[in-house]
Amino acid sequence: MKGAKNNAQKRGSMIRVGIIGATGYAGNELVRLLLGHKEAEIVWYGSRSYIDENYADIYRNMFQLVDAKCMDDNMEQLANQVDVIFTATPQGLCASLVNEEILNKVKIIDLSADFRLKDVHIYEDWYKIEHKAPQYIDEAVYGLCEINRNQINENTRIIANPGCYTTTSILALYPMIKEGIINPYSIIIDAKSGTSGAGRGAKVQNLFCEVNENMKAYAVGTHRHTPEIEEQLGYACAKNDIKLIFTPHLVPMNRGILVTAYADLAKDVVYEEVKQIYDAYYQNEYFIRVLDKDVCPETRWVEGSNFVDINFRIEPRTHRLIMMGALDNLVKGAAGQAVQNMNLMFGFKENEGLMMAPLFP
Amino acid sequence: MKGAKNNAQKRGSMIRVGIIGATGYAGNELVRLLLGHKEAEIVWYGSRSYIDENYADIYRNMFQLVDAKCMDDNMEQLANQVDVIFTATPQGLCASLVNEEILNKVKIIDLSADFRLKDVHIYEDWYKIEHKAPQYIDEAVYGLCEINRNQINENTRIIANPGCYTTTSILALYPMIKEGIINPYSIIIDAKSGTSGAGRGAKVQNLFCEVNENMKAYAVGTHRHTPEIEEQLGYACAKNDIKLIFTPHLVPMNRGILVTAYADLAKDVVYEEVKQIYDAYYQNEYFIRVLDKDVCPETRWVEGSNFVDINFRIEPRTHRLIMMGALDNLVKGAAGQAVQNMNLMFGFKENEGLMMAPLFP
Amino acid sequence: MKGAKNNAQKRGSMIRVGIIGATGYAGNELVRLLLGHKEAEIVWYGSRSYIDENYADIYRNMFQLVDAKCMDDNMEQLANQVDVIFTATPQGLCASLVNEEILNKVKIIDLSADFRLKDVHIYEDWYKIEHKAPQYIDEAVYGLCEINRNQINENTRIIANPGCYTTTSILALYPMIKEGIINPYSIIIDAKSGTSGAGRGAKVQNLFCEVNENMKAYAVGTHRHTPEIEEQLGYACAKNDIKLIFTPHLVPMNRGILVTAYADLAKDVVYEEVKQIYDAYYQNEYFIRVLDKDVCPETRWVEGSNFVDINFRIEPRTHRLIMMGALDNLVKGAAGQAVQNMNLMFGFKENEGLMMAPLFP
Amino acid sequence: MKGAKNNAQKRGSMIRVGIIGATGYAGNELVRLLLGHKEAEIVWYGSRSYIDENYADIYRNMFQLVDAKCMDDNMEQLANQVDVIFTATPQGLCASLVNEEILNKVKIIDLSADFRLKDVHIYEDWYKIEHKAPQYIDEAVYGLCEINRNQINENTRIIANPGCYTTTSILALYPMIKEGIINPYSIIIDAKSGTSGAGRGAKVQNLFCEVNENMKAYAVGTHRHTPEIEEQLGYACAKNDIKLIFTPHLVPMNRGILVTAYADLAKDVVYEEVKQIYDAYYQNEYFIRVLDKDVCPETRWVEGSNFVDINFRIEPRTHRLIMMGALDNLVKGAAGQAVQNMNLMFGFKENEGLMMAPLFP
Repeated sequence: MKGAKNNAQKRGSMIRVGIIGATGYAGNELVRLLLGHKEAEIVWYGSRSYIDENYADIYRNMFQLVDAKCMDDNMEQLANQVDVIFTATPQGLCASLVNEEILNKVKIIDLSADFRLKDVHIYEDWYKIEHKAPQYIDEAVYGLCEINRNQINENTRIIANPGCYTTTSILALYPMIKEGIINPYSIIIDAKSGTSGAGRGAKVQNLFCEVNENMKAYAVGTHRHTPEIEEQLGYACAKNDIKLIFTPHLVPMNRGILVTAYADLAKDVVYEEVKQIYDAYYQNEYFIRVLDKDVCPETRWVEGSNFVDINFRIEPRTHRLIMMGALDNLVKGAAGQAVQNMNLMFGFKENEGLMMAPLFP
Repeated sequence: MKGAKNNAQKRGSMIRVGIIGATGYAGNELVRLLLGHKEAEIVWYGSRSYIDENYADIYRNMFQLVDAKCMDDNMEQLANQVDVIFTATPQGLCASLVNEEILNKVKIIDLSADFRLKDVHIYEDWYKIEHKAPQYIDEAVYGLCEINRNQINENTRIIANPGCYTTTSILALYPMIKEGIINPYSIIIDAKSGTSGAGRGAKVQNLFCEVNENMKAYAVGTHRHTPEIEEQLGYACAKNDIKLIFTPHLVPMNRGILVTAYADLAKDVVYEEVKQIYDAYYQNEYFIRVLDKDVCPETRWVEGSNFVDINFRIEPRTHRLIMMGALDNLVKGAAGQAVQNMNLMFGFKENEGLMMAPLFP
Repeated sequence: MKGAKNNAQKRGSMIRVGIIGATGYAGNELVRLLLGHKEAEIVWYGSRSYIDENYADIYRNMFQLVDAKCMDDNMEQLANQVDVIFTATPQGLCASLVNEEILNKVKIIDLSADFRLKDVHIYEDWYKIEHKAPQYIDEAVYGLCEINRNQINENTRIIANPGCYTTTSILALYPMIKEGIINPYSIIIDAKSGTSGAGRGAKVQNLFCEVNENMKAYAVGTHRHTPEIEEQLGYACAKNDIKLIFTPHLVPMNRGILVTAYADLAKDVVYEEVKQIYDAYYQNEYFIRVLDKDVCPETRWVEGSNFVDINFRIEPRTHRLIMMGALDNLVKGAAGQAVQNMNLMFGFKENEGLMMAPLFP
Repeated sequence: MKGAKNNAQKRGSMIRVGIIGATGYAGNELVRLLLGHKEAEIVWYGSRSYIDENYADIYRNMFQLVDAKCMDDNMEQLANQVDVIFTATPQGLCASLVNEEILNKVKIIDLSADFRLKDVHIYEDWYKIEHKAPQYIDEAVYGLCEINRNQINENTRIIANPGCYTTTSILALYPMIKEGIINPYSIIIDAKSGTSGAGRGAKVQNLFCEVNENMKAYAVGTHRHTPEIEEQLGYACAKNDIKLIFTPHLVPMNRGILVTAYADLAKDVVYEEVKQIYDAYYQNEYFIRVLDKDVCPETRWVEGSNFVDINFRIEPRTHRLIMMGALDNLVKGAAGQAVQNMNLMFGFKENEGLMMAPLFP
């Protein structure tokens, strides 16, 4: 290991970070982002599957950048060593590990769904697992910073980091729901995702030859991000009975979520009115870019960055509104948003470590 | 040229075929399919851009299979030499060339949009060009064989070969509209297309690095296949005022159309009822495969073939129906359907030359 | 199952085919090709991993085309029911199953490496397994039809179907070696393969996100096709001590092998001389296309077909010859070549079932 | 433009940068890298094709990050306004613009080939254009920092920034040539490149459907990077008559160069000896990573970064050495190397603005 290749000059005053699930794609993205973060240092690369192996042998992009072995997922031990733990793990794991003692020592940013849904029955219904720590659901803040920023601060102990589809969908729809522009009972979300969202598990369905040169819908009518979107959009319009259609599709590309959402207009509007609303909500948001008229979001323009590109089109023939959003599922849809939450929880600059421009092509 | 490599043993009794626009992707696909057709022989490879060049120098897959030079688009001359002309050309060209003398000599299968829309004003509105032969619009048969088969026969002089998005959309929706299962005024079609649909023109936006690793919507609210779908679905339910949303997306793959369509249920239905209707319409159709319960259409399973895979899902939470279809845009969405129409027009077996199994991976 | 979708009109006089390993990519390609074959009918879809599952549930391209369940790999039983068995299985399996009783009843076309190498020690060295039926190695014919056609006929009992890299490499080099144009001790073969060559096993390294947007060499200096190429080229020049470098690379595409091979010229030659030799060897070969001057083979131009495209360039600055070849690894590199061998073994037309034009794009 | 999204906090003391050719892929990559550079600020986005258009309308990844219009390629004017000019332009342009007056005002980093070859006749031979400023060829430093670092400093006026293939090839081979491990007259370089290397020009051959699912060699025996590699390797062994084979291939991916190079061993060596030499040359180089034994370079592990991954394998059967290298053609192969040169020319930290970790997947 040549220290010279360590990306940031790490200082003594940095916070210490542990990652549980460091060898998934989101875990590796956390590593990439935190290597360039001035205030944080990773000290624990947790990965049950690769214990004692060199992290850089699993992810060779990190050769000579990360000099550490993978560790077991011991949250008790970890809580004594770090200031914040990211859990980028399968559903249920974080909830099964967390307890009062741990939360008194360390902040938790959970990239799984364990604390996203406020109604434990809905969680257990859609995820088909028992929730092991329902007592923390209320405390956990839904970490969509642009909407819940005022709840995320140095007192926050648990963040439920939103899903990739969810982040795109909510950010595209939120101002329209909140301002009563669209009918919240008429929403259809047709979403498309790159394949890194499917994870690094060795499954036939995710082999190159199965995904390449193919397009498909999956989990039609049953995807677990559905109730998460419904709940959050419900808060926006103070209704708890929103039901919507969410249809995800798999696209032969590595990164990117594209959402095309449809809803009935609740009133007659013109372009300028709608644009003004989006701008009012987002023009001061560093990570949200409301595009110019008639420019459609494309995943390539946000790849590798924490940006979300958003736009809309009024469809007068059918009196509907089409809302579109694009982001990088591993950055704003996972690791980038998690770092953004960390920044808020520790009082750092919100975009610290997240200012890289999108990579194209 | 080694005659031995000519794919079919061509006989004297074969019909003679001319292609105008033989060097576009659809044109090349016509060549591929007709090389394996027992009843037809291509004698004219028209391509204004490559006159006098060897066809096999433009499309090297045809090296030693096609021994011909590209010819000008002379429809008058061509009409004297062939039995049928395929026009795989930009909008407006076919309409500008066709006349009574030609139609008395030769059948025309037009892969452009010139004769698809029955209302010439809608054509001129959406395509922004003047229609040069509106007198033939009524005569032209909309060549979606599964629906209009009884109008396609040896007396048919002009076929308006349907578009790729349109074929997928109509076939997925038709039985539901026709049987009153869905509300025809509530339709949203979210479509995804491989890049061959964008043609072989040298445009920056279609370069490899611009399309690869990207997903985008385009022509949102304005795509010209919209009125074509509206008109045809209108016939199914005897309404002429259907308006729907059609949103196309570009996918980083060569071939394939995937349609995910949404509509409000017009009545309460269960799976078996809906399945029965689809089966009633399609089980005797060679090229339509209604999939088993919960199996979603995927473009990879139809690639290279003339099949359309169709399925649906009832979404009880929102009382909607989700209808899905997949086909190969160059085969059933263009050249394959054109050959299917030719087969019907000349009394050949409908699937002659079109029985190849899908190629995977 | 609608019989109407069965691709070929199957007759009583057809030969009966069994496939062991029908659910690998090469197995599925055998199915695709044999569905279009006029003289053969598949009656046994062997797949140890999917016993009793519908074949068309594993490969949905075959929905309504194949109405059969996967069977166990019982060669004894199979030998009583079929005329020919294709084994598209891991190394060692075919050798472990074959015996005199079976060979007296049925022909075997082995797509694995078990009978390709004539020296059993080399086999055991490179494949690290014991050969279970060395007594049949001599009898087995190396099924590169263009070179060994005179040994493949109705008396042939076992075919060792050549590998994909090997077929490309040997066909590109053979005439040059045989005619003494190049120094056989100076050969370097740099080969590139699509990912279907890696098989359908669920391995992390073959996931979409691991292969896409990547290029790598693998098995450098150790790939098992090396001795196979050395042996066969040795026959061409009557030397048994040829050693060469063979370096395979993995390319983010589904199908295709591209070989770029380098060797020292053994004498001064001009373009026309070399071209004449290639033509002399190959101009009557249906499946080999020697390209025009300065045209490089590209995998896209052979995709889906049984063609091999070959060309060369004299490099006068370094007095070397560059030889290039391209084929579809699943067709001429596996299933297509196997069918070609079957055709020869049963006295069918050599290109029966193999005349489809390449699919582009 | 929200200033808040400007990636770096730009200071008054920064150097001012002009880019001629800012709308090519390398130009856009310069913009991406310089946005994150602490010591430099872009003030001129030159692009003859898009004069007066918003830069961020051409490259929407830069929306709200770059607030500037494209300017003409006026080097005279530019020289008065900036400290350094990057020319990312077609061959011949830089040489036609440069003169003593300009060079006295501003440093030039030329990403084209104009000043790479020291022998003007070789340049004119291979590039088929007259060199308009041969008087500066000697002065220009070949900007391969790892080799020529001691010539790159505050007095340097012109840098000839090396090509992408060349950088990979030279860095992989240099220590072996220099130390006499390989025979310099026996070199064969088989190189593979992502498609961004072909530029953003609208050409049919670079359309998505032409490149995707394809692999080909091109410019076989004639590629213009050949003499550049020969010259530079010649310096390493003090020979001016090295001739080698360089064969580039086009790969269906956006970014990345992979080089597999072959040469005869000049002496008997074992692994440790060769490894020691590579380490001696490169272990203190921030941007070069000599991999562990038997690990092959892969383009995915360097994507988006300025790293070059290098390894080798001794091939004892043929007494040759196989040398491999991988880099990102737009970073270390173009814009990243240019910034590295700028850093050296202005006395900045060599890796300033270049420390981002590779992006995967």
